[in-house]
Amino acid sequence: MNIDLAIAKILKKIRENKGISQEQLAFKADLHRTYISQLERGLKSITVKTLFKITESLEVEIDEFIKLVADELENVQSNKQTKS
Amino acid sequence: MNIDLAIAKILKKIRENKGISQEQLAFKADLHRTYISQLERGLKSITVKTLFKITESLEVEIDEFIKLVADELENVQSNKQTKS
Repeated sequence: MNIDLAIAKILKKIRENKGISQEQLAFKADLHRTYISQLERGLKSITVKTLFKITESLEVEIDEFIKLVADELENVQSNKQTKS
Repeated sequence: MNIDLAIAKILKKIRENKGISQEQLAFKADLHRTYISQLERGLKSITVKTLFKITESLEVEIDEFIKLVADELENVQSNKQTKS
């Protein structure tokens, strides 16, 4: 899994857990709904600056968000190593 | 202070503390030295993807790096509030 896909997965998971729609998140973070949708499909590389806006809107700490992404990438890699 | 400037400050500080030159960091992270220099002057908005490459090259955890950036932004804001 690449980084954009890991970010996509964590973003979608947190947003859904918070019960917020893509539209609501887009509005809160002053971004386009299409952009949120692209992020959640791993089609865009987000800047740290924009991630600050999104995590603020989701009311999560940005470093905790990034930790989840790093853990996600590590888990995928260790699963690969176990399988090979 | 904006986010790019906070990232610039933390990046430069960690790189210098580790005794690594901009050239060495650029080589390790497979980036251009000019780009590292622009980042350290807050002239570029880094993607999370590229920040992963840089923090790996600096041998620091990306979530710890981001925490330092968030703290830097918070300190600046609380200093502003104290002054006003």
